[in-house]
Amino acid sequence: MAVTIQEVARAANVSPSTVSNVLNGRDGRMLPETKLRVEAAIARLGYRPNRAARQLRTGRIQMLGLVVPSVANPFWGTFAQLVESVALRSGFRVLLCNSERDPEREHEYLEELWADGVGSVVLCSSLPSIAHVEPFLRQGMRIVAFDRISQLGDPAGLTNISVDNSLGAQLATSHLLELGHRRLAFVSGKLQSVNRQERLTGFRSTVDRLGVPAVVWTDDGSGRGGDLDAAEVGRAAAYELLDSAEPPTAFFAVNDMCALGVCAGVRDAGLVVGTDVSVVGFDDIALADLAFPALTTIRQPLPEMAAAAVTYLVGSADSGAGQSVMMRPELVVRASTAANGSGH
Amino acid sequence: MAVTIQEVARAANVSPSTVSNVLNGRDGRMLPETKLRVEAAIARLGYRPNRAARQLRTGRIQMLGLVVPSVANPFWGTFAQLVESVALRSGFRVLLCNSERDPEREHEYLEELWADGVGSVVLCSSLPSIAHVEPFLRQGMRIVAFDRISQLGDPAGLTNISVDNSLGAQLATSHLLELGHRRLAFVSGKLQSVNRQERLTGFRSTVDRLGVPAVVWTDDGSGRGGDLDAAEVGRAAAYELLDSAEPPTAFFAVNDMCALGVCAGVRDAGLVVGTDVSVVGFDDIALADLAFPALTTIRQPLPEMAAAAVTYLVGSADSGAGQSVMMRPELVVRASTAANGSGH
Repeated sequence: MAVTIQEVARAANVSPSTVSNVLNGRDGRMLPETKLRVEAAIARLGYRPNRAARQLRTGRIQMLGLVVPSVANPFWGTFAQLVESVALRSGFRVLLCNSERDPEREHEYLEELWADGVGSVVLCSSLPSIAHVEPFLRQGMRIVAFDRISQLGDPAGLTNISVDNSLGAQLATSHLLELGHRRLAFVSGKLQSVNRQERLTGFRSTVDRLGVPAVVWTDDGSGRGGDLDAAEVGRAAAYELLDSAEPPTAFFAVNDMCALGVCAGVRDAGLVVGTDVSVVGFDDIALADLAFPALTTIRQPLPEMAAAAVTYLVGSADSGAGQSVMMRPELVVRASTAANGSGH
Repeated sequence: MAVTIQEVARAANVSPSTVSNVLNGRDGRMLPETKLRVEAAIARLGYRPNRAARQLRTGRIQMLGLVVPSVANPFWGTFAQLVESVALRSGFRVLLCNSERDPEREHEYLEELWADGVGSVVLCSSLPSIAHVEPFLRQGMRIVAFDRISQLGDPAGLTNISVDNSLGAQLATSHLLELGHRRLAFVSGKLQSVNRQERLTGFRSTVDRLGVPAVVWTDDGSGRGGDLDAAEVGRAAAYELLDSAEPPTAFFAVNDMCALGVCAGVRDAGLVVGTDVSVVGFDDIALADLAFPALTTIRQPLPEMAAAAVTYLVGSADSGAGQSVMMRPELVVRASTAANGSGH
């Protein structure tokens, strides 16, 4: 049973309103001894102020939930920071949850958040089926699916915010083709998310249009399949593909961490990135510009996307519910790509 | 006023126990129509199940709070993932908060967490004064201060888990001295945290022992002072110091992100990392090994530290309260350091 304020008062031999004064910092004119006695009783009995009551009393700040696939990928860390800074301006705080793209874990987090009175969530796992969030939408939770365009069979009321992943992949692939590359590779971890499938679609449609041979290398998913090991996936792909009979001269990696792994693998193979082999990433994380050579990549307009997600969630009820926002990606050319044959 | 289960039952024209059955998924033998009516009433009235009641009913999972300075730094993303995976094994979930090392924001997060019934927190800001958490410790919150050794004036009951930051800095600095470097620089963002001050102390004591000239370059804190811009701090330091009359031949950066920034700045200045200029970082994030050249750094035993923090927090009451655990760092030599004069 939960401990009540009355029980604390009894244990400390004071009135309930004295306990309330201590809890709310109104203890300026209180005897230090009295305050200590109340605090000791609170600690001994394990009293926890009731959230809803506190909220009514103090007008406490509200919260948003943010469920990301993996905070170990700096892309998600940066996105979390952007969401938080926009949310704070509207008086909202952000609770960050890490799902590893596991639907069961996501469901449990949503349960937690809902039970805590958090009714607005940004969900970033980009899973093809969103069936596990349907019960929450029906109960009135506001959910933005981030980095995931609407899918056939999605429940009503789901709002989608995403970059145009297919267009981004087309930009990346066209860039490599324009540089004269004719043996291309697409590298990715397990293709269990909508955004990754879209990136593959954009790649395929571009190479197929020109009839250029291309290889698609994806992790078999025997690992955890999340973004944590994206760099290792890229490195392994580079090892294997550069050792094949017809090694690719250019790689398009599903995200920047994966691309940085490809670059490491290219170097391990004794080749030079940007001279012997070109590499393009996706995201434009801060490290893309810091890397050597600096990484050519597809920039997601992350600040705008974070702002759109938060604006919908903190806005008036039903504004934008069910809508799908698709933002435009941009090719950022740096030193990791060059004309085919630069190394000869 | 909070909506009650009785009000939902009335609105849906069912009994409260039917509402409870819907809320708890016991709806197998219920008419679909009844279930829909209850769900509609829940959504319309904005009913939220009471957290404490749910917990008693369903034996729900418990939560730990994790307050990090900046999730945009991959070090904290990785730490968060480790804490979460250890916590999950004990049936705990992790709520992640981002404090930017702002004591006021930390205080508000602790209020949130406490009000939500989260009584165990890992606090990673490493601020010199912990006065703002004292009220929570007194009320019985269990707090692990991470990456922060005990300070004079700390309240009783605070548990500290940290790598030996001073020893780590001594290892890094001795390594550079052994390679023959005689003009050293220490680079850091604002020195507002205990861990950074300790790293500077270790650096200073080592160069002073040999009487080697050394420059300490710290960000003036006009930026946000967090880890977000650590790479930019490093880059700016390299620009400025390499342009001075007596440029350093070796840099010790306060963390790996800062070191990667120094490396970028060295390249911008037309010099080669590991040949012309040596760079050592601190942390051993995954990117240290991916970078080119791979970064020499001081490894923190992060999995062990995460396990120690969680074990204390989920353990039996008072186990380890007030204790201070200091772990041993390790020098990892890679390609970003070489003998002084390698470039000539």
